[in-house]
Amino acid sequence: MEAERREEILTAAWYEIVHRGYAGTRVADIAQRSGTSSATVHYYFPTRSEVLSEALRFAMKRARERHEQELAGVGTLREQLVRLVELQIPVGSVHDDFRIWLEVWNEASRRAELRPIQDDSYERWVNFVKAIVTKGQRRGEFATGVDAAEVVAQLLAIIDGLAIQVVAGSSHLGPDEMRKLVLSFLERELFRYGQ
Amino acid sequence: MEAERREEILTAAWYEIVHRGYAGTRVADIAQRSGTSSATVHYYFPTRSEVLSEALRFAMKRARERHEQELAGVGTLREQLVRLVELQIPVGSVHDDFRIWLEVWNEASRRAELRPIQDDSYERWVNFVKAIVTKGQRRGEFATGVDAAEVVAQLLAIIDGLAIQVVAGSSHLGPDEMRKLVLSFLERELFRYGQ
Repeated sequence: MEAERREEILTAAWYEIVHRGYAGTRVADIAQRSGTSSATVHYYFPTRSEVLSEALRFAMKRARERHEQELAGVGTLREQLVRLVELQIPVGSVHDDFRIWLEVWNEASRRAELRPIQDDSYERWVNFVKAIVTKGQRRGEFATGVDAAEVVAQLLAIIDGLAIQVVAGSSHLGPDEMRKLVLSFLERELFRYGQ
Repeated sequence: MEAERREEILTAAWYEIVHRGYAGTRVADIAQRSGTSSATVHYYFPTRSEVLSEALRFAMKRARERHEQELAGVGTLREQLVRLVELQIPVGSVHDDFRIWLEVWNEASRRAELRPIQDDSYERWVNFVKAIVTKGQRRGEFATGVDAAEVVAQLLAIIDGLAIQVVAGSSHLGPDEMRKLVLSFLERELFRYGQ
């Protein structure tokens, strides 16, 4: 019951950050969205900063779980990478996730407080993808001429850089163009010389 | 005199956006920083929205001019691209530029008002780099097996994606790692098979 209420508050906080931005979200907004009071929010999270930080950690954990679930039944490592790219195309809830990321990067650039969350989360993400690439290189599914750490850092940067344009409402770059550009990078760097 | 005052106001607005964020910058802050009054700011720019938008356009125009100046004397197209990468490494004023970009992307994701500025500016940036790549391919300085539009979109996304990590204060990715990763992408995609 307590855990359930806690999750409701974090989900509400996440929603408010997506729509109002990190700076614009007040504890009262979170309380209203989760159908409770500011006092109750503060019972679980003593400060505004704590509820917002915890909401970001919660959202990132949820995204990681979704990635793991989605890849669980996928056959080849090549198919896993392609599936993972698909999960980064900013449509629906992934669009909201990228808006949160933009908030986090923006806030972290100005305040040290959010840096450990962004840093830890990005590092887990890098390692998750690197494990797939390394395994694929070992199994001969992927090209081995390129350093796994290097190609993963470039891949994730391409994903973020293109997603930003999509989320910022570019009239030149939409979800379809993004998918095509990310996959063509993978094709040249890892798939072409593989199986 | 009027043009000079106008530029002072825009430079002050730019400074305030870097330090307070787009949402947190008031006309009074801009007036104070530029040593004038809110009434004077409003004489040049009727609304807060106009002074902020104009400050962004001004900063982006200034960045483009800096790029053109910096490349003017540079010999080969390969050296031009390497120089251009160097100008994107977020140290000093480039660090501030990327904080502005983060603000713009963040705001544009939430409000349609800033989209045309970001869209137009990014398109000019894409075309600027594409002209160098196309010329290099025509002259045989760069590999021709890859589509110029595609490799430029990927290159600029890598730059943005990595710069975000640097600006967000990543403990894993600093300016030196960023430079290395961008140059190794260029090496594999354009330089290796060139001259």
